[in-house]
Amino acid sequence: MDPVKVIEIKKSVFADNDRDADELRSELKRRGVFLLNLMSSPGSGKTTTLIRTINLLKDKIRVAVMEADIDSDVDAVKIQAATGIPSIQLHTGGMCHLDAEMTRQGLDNVDLGGADLVILENVGNLVCPAEFDTGAVCNAMILSVPEGDDKPLKYPLMFSICDVVVINKMDVQPYFDFDLEKCREYIRMRNPKARVIPISAKTGEGVEQFAAWLLEAVNNWKQH
Amino acid sequence: MDPVKVIEIKKSVFADNDRDADELRSELKRRGVFLLNLMSSPGSGKTTTLIRTINLLKDKIRVAVMEADIDSDVDAVKIQAATGIPSIQLHTGGMCHLDAEMTRQGLDNVDLGGADLVILENVGNLVCPAEFDTGAVCNAMILSVPEGDDKPLKYPLMFSICDVVVINKMDVQPYFDFDLEKCREYIRMRNPKARVIPISAKTGEGVEQFAAWLLEAVNNWKQH
Repeated sequence: MDPVKVIEIKKSVFADNDRDADELRSELKRRGVFLLNLMSSPGSGKTTTLIRTINLLKDKIRVAVMEADIDSDVDAVKIQAATGIPSIQLHTGGMCHLDAEMTRQGLDNVDLGGADLVILENVGNLVCPAEFDTGAVCNAMILSVPEGDDKPLKYPLMFSICDVVVINKMDVQPYFDFDLEKCREYIRMRNPKARVIPISAKTGEGVEQFAAWLLEAVNNWKQH
Repeated sequence: MDPVKVIEIKKSVFADNDRDADELRSELKRRGVFLLNLMSSPGSGKTTTLIRTINLLKDKIRVAVMEADIDSDVDAVKIQAATGIPSIQLHTGGMCHLDAEMTRQGLDNVDLGGADLVILENVGNLVCPAEFDTGAVCNAMILSVPEGDDKPLKYPLMFSICDVVVINKMDVQPYFDFDLEKCREYIRMRNPKARVIPISAKTGEGVEQFAAWLLEAVNNWKQH
């Protein structure tokens, strides 16, 4: 497999991100490519979750990954090595989020003709990525147990825009004061429709639920 | 004790944040108030670390706390209840960081006449807060074990501007793949001068080192 491609993303010059995001979404719809925008804090386990999820999906649909980070290419290299699927690294040049135009710059470097699902792993940040529509069909986030069950109170926008909240690192719950029911309640306060899926990316527990949810989302979207 | 004051911070209109930060720093120097800017990811344990640290320091110097969050006042309430020291909550109205003018708006609501040390708990975010000088004398950050030892590779600016990196949640190290020596090495790559202090805010292990470091920093600064 080729070495991971690293793309230096340029700051967006478009004034109207919402319009640009809608255009990108329409274009992806025409091409039959489902774009998932995956967000979280730094270190919540996005990459490990993706590896498990992709390995469950890759024989059913064609998946590609774009890893966004301020610096380094560790995530794209890890994904490609562990799943064998094409993965590119986007460098944001210090930017704390991706918008639709920046996402498009990434997509220009992915072979979209072959992909059913492109997963964008956004910059690790619970604040700014929530404010910018990337053009994705679906927003997902990961909250990990060590971060605490009160995060929906402190980062309301992020929780309100996500269709699914994956709660990762459930295997270490005994060592932390994390109340899953309280967390579900806080998430419901922000977003009554959000699906909550507890997992452990380390042990694999629950990942098949997330993979099944995602596969169903992709298939439903393709049919409508 | 009075209920916690919640301040709605307004977006800064100053064009030159660096100049404004320098002015604030000079003013605080004249008044003998040491401002510490504490940063981290969401859920790394800033508040718990502060409670332990303040309880070790509060008989030696006068401390006040400003808690910045996008929403909620859980942290300021927690700090005040657990330490008995004055604590105010700053609401950033969605903003992902504080700059010098926003910090000043917070300080206007703290009784500075009585304080040797004001601690600003910045918004939980490893990206944006690193880009804006708050006017603090000293920048500190907390990285927690569950976030992973590779964070200095991914968030270079944050690690390069901090005088001290506290590594929290050492009590759960056995359950995570976190290599402390590798992490120290990555931090050194970004910032050879940064002091690294491993702690567990939960058990209290190592917190006295951080408190001693902070007390010495305040005393040295007051004498020079």
